[in-house]
Amino acid sequence: MMKPQSVAIIGASSNPVKVGYVILNNYIEEGYQGRLYPINPNDDKILGLKAYKSVLEVRDRIDLAVIAVPAAIVPKVLEECGRAKVRSVVVVSGGFAEIGDQKLEDKIVAIANKYKMPMIGPNCLGVMDPRSRIDTLFLPTFKLSKPKIGGVSFVCQSGAVGSTVLDLIAKEGFGLSKFISYGNAAQVDEVDLFEYLMEDDETKVIIMYIEGVKRGREFFEIGKRLSMKKPVVVLKGGVTEGGAVAAHSHTAALAGSHEAYDAVFRQCGFAIARDLTELLHYGKIFASEIEPKGDRIAIITNGGGTGVLTTDAVFNAGLKMAEFSSQTKSTLKKKMPSTVNIANPLDLVGDADDRRYEDALNLLAQDKNVEMLIVIALFQTPGADEKLSERLVHLKSSIDKPMIVISIGAGYTEERKIFMENNGLPVYDSPAAAANSLAELLKYAKYKKKMV
Amino acid sequence: MMKPQSVAIIGASSNPVKVGYVILNNYIEEGYQGRLYPINPNDDKILGLKAYKSVLEVRDRIDLAVIAVPAAIVPKVLEECGRAKVRSVVVVSGGFAEIGDQKLEDKIVAIANKYKMPMIGPNCLGVMDPRSRIDTLFLPTFKLSKPKIGGVSFVCQSGAVGSTVLDLIAKEGFGLSKFISYGNAAQVDEVDLFEYLMEDDETKVIIMYIEGVKRGREFFEIGKRLSMKKPVVVLKGGVTEGGAVAAHSHTAALAGSHEAYDAVFRQCGFAIARDLTELLHYGKIFASEIEPKGDRIAIITNGGGTGVLTTDAVFNAGLKMAEFSSQTKSTLKKKMPSTVNIANPLDLVGDADDRRYEDALNLLAQDKNVEMLIVIALFQTPGADEKLSERLVHLKSSIDKPMIVISIGAGYTEERKIFMENNGLPVYDSPAAAANSLAELLKYAKYKKKMV
Repeated sequence: MMKPQSVAIIGASSNPVKVGYVILNNYIEEGYQGRLYPINPNDDKILGLKAYKSVLEVRDRIDLAVIAVPAAIVPKVLEECGRAKVRSVVVVSGGFAEIGDQKLEDKIVAIANKYKMPMIGPNCLGVMDPRSRIDTLFLPTFKLSKPKIGGVSFVCQSGAVGSTVLDLIAKEGFGLSKFISYGNAAQVDEVDLFEYLMEDDETKVIIMYIEGVKRGREFFEIGKRLSMKKPVVVLKGGVTEGGAVAAHSHTAALAGSHEAYDAVFRQCGFAIARDLTELLHYGKIFASEIEPKGDRIAIITNGGGTGVLTTDAVFNAGLKMAEFSSQTKSTLKKKMPSTVNIANPLDLVGDADDRRYEDALNLLAQDKNVEMLIVIALFQTPGADEKLSERLVHLKSSIDKPMIVISIGAGYTEERKIFMENNGLPVYDSPAAAANSLAELLKYAKYKKKMV
Repeated sequence: MMKPQSVAIIGASSNPVKVGYVILNNYIEEGYQGRLYPINPNDDKILGLKAYKSVLEVRDRIDLAVIAVPAAIVPKVLEECGRAKVRSVVVVSGGFAEIGDQKLEDKIVAIANKYKMPMIGPNCLGVMDPRSRIDTLFLPTFKLSKPKIGGVSFVCQSGAVGSTVLDLIAKEGFGLSKFISYGNAAQVDEVDLFEYLMEDDETKVIIMYIEGVKRGREFFEIGKRLSMKKPVVVLKGGVTEGGAVAAHSHTAALAGSHEAYDAVFRQCGFAIARDLTELLHYGKIFASEIEPKGDRIAIITNGGGTGVLTTDAVFNAGLKMAEFSSQTKSTLKKKMPSTVNIANPLDLVGDADDRRYEDALNLLAQDKNVEMLIVIALFQTPGADEKLSERLVHLKSSIDKPMIVISIGAGYTEERKIFMENNGLPVYDSPAAAANSLAELLKYAKYKKKMV
């Protein structure tokens, strides 16, 4: 399903407002290298490709069929897929259990099972894999920035959350392995996806948005095994009374008690995100594959107030501020200008340039009391420029301690952020995001150690 | 100080790395219309302007002197300002109480008091007023987006926090009245600034970052009176044990107990932000001058999962989901396609276009059970485009109910967000931000009503 050599698009269309047009067009635009078969009984040619009346007409093995036809027709085309020995299907069409038609949903599951076809959906966006350029999403490419190739797989019950998070992943600068939007989870569910992703070597980290779990016991078992191999970040929708009702009419999910889910996630060693923003923040820290050393943090800043707020965030996240050794302090005193207070946070003050950061970071990196570094680089100040962002990227590889950056701002700052992110340095735009992400990293490391 | 006809820049310099260069250059670049006097004993001409050895040489009334010379020289030039009858001063130089030199700080306060000169600072960025184009900030303009003219005044003890927040205000699209970074608050403090902003007609909303308060009793008294006239949003740095220590070495603030501050802020009716992001979110909702109607919210969305998450956020913020009237429900059923579940959140599904939003919003706006509207517009979907953003801007003025938008994403979405923001429609990038902001709006309205 993720690396198909041949794809049939059932419901492909020449009409640009149709989902079947967008899907086919995306395959063409993104340069998919396999064989494409548009299926539509009313057309001979779609977007320059020969069209077929049914998959049964195609004289080729079809690895994946994407079904985008009205719900009522899905059983018929699915049956044809089965007879044509299609190897996997994604049903993007909605109009099943989520609007109360459980019978129609049961019917398509029975067909998929009869032919032993793995089926994702219905009521979903489907799958995306930037490596194989497989992309069943029916979203116009110009509206959606697509993430680069990387190690984060994103499992998402909702289509809309999926598309916005993909857009944000691209902006945040970390790379994607697989995206799977699985909608109603009628047949393939979380448990199947976990089994697949556990063995997928391209997947280093899993982030997920979930509204409900169908097989609780199996989820728990596979979840525990999965997080021993790879970090998992989970955001659960429907955690309040009202949200649970909304989730049911969205993906037919039985939301269950918030506390029960939380307990399961915690016992599985998952990082729990409280909103989309945290899902991205935690995804980013795990994607960096930083090995945390301990909870004693040094903060280096060129802005005092941001240092204060970050200290608050470190405490609120349950981390500690490192006590610099007396040697570090005396060497800092010699090397730093008199306006710099030798303390943690170390405020290099507003005129700090890349050299001052380098001197300070090299010293703190040698201090045994310092286990992780938060570097605040505010690019609005006169001394902070391109050179500083380059220096920090360079220091990240020369320093033997985990290091992340906080940079807050618009225009110029965003350019510097993108540069650092693209060079493997995680950058956060808020003190709380940075501190909480480090705390999750440490929590996960402890969980794994305890479980071994 | 905010509308000076003449400004002296003491420590002005031809050397681009000097603070005194950046300040003078910013005045010139931003097109300040008043008279500028660079002061530097070693130059005759700076940046094309005649330079003076001291303010005493200038034969003009000086409304504001910006002092950017080493700390040790500040008493001397301040004394000269006093003798020259300079009407107000901003001391941007650091090197006073914040590095332990209380004596030097007391000395400059005594001089300012002797001549009855209001003095902001030391150790600050100073003031900015986009209307009068006054700007004492020593930050290169290309690194810092500057906000448009508007009604939000931003009081900030820290320079760095100030500059990053200004940059973000510009990005978030709301307008600025005054920016005042007051550093050590040696003479002019929060109480003075509150008194000034309370009477300033250009200021509709106050947001502030604070590390400590010097005159607690007066702060409490003026704070209560101020928030009866204008909403105040406050972010306090140094709320944890470690943060309080850091705050002291930053602005010499005695941070005091977190609980005590919280209690004072609450009794004053201030909205309390827990981080920079919330400071901006709450600033934005108050800047919109929306009059809240009540706590029953309707959510309209083109993405089911985002509807679920927003419902969770509404509940977590202590708001309620509106129960649509039976008439609304039956009319919606007639007007909406069969794929739309008639419920709150109202999921218009992924192919919703501007017309479907319009129909739904007009109906919900007429429902007496609905008091505020959260419109989720995810621009990654095929039906959501420029027309939708235009339609929402239009509906905002035709509908007689508070309405805010949630749009999440990068590139294309950010363009649409900027368009809506520039047309007076508040847009949030997370469900929690939107719901919490509405809750603060309501809380403030209730506070004012109770106090009248």
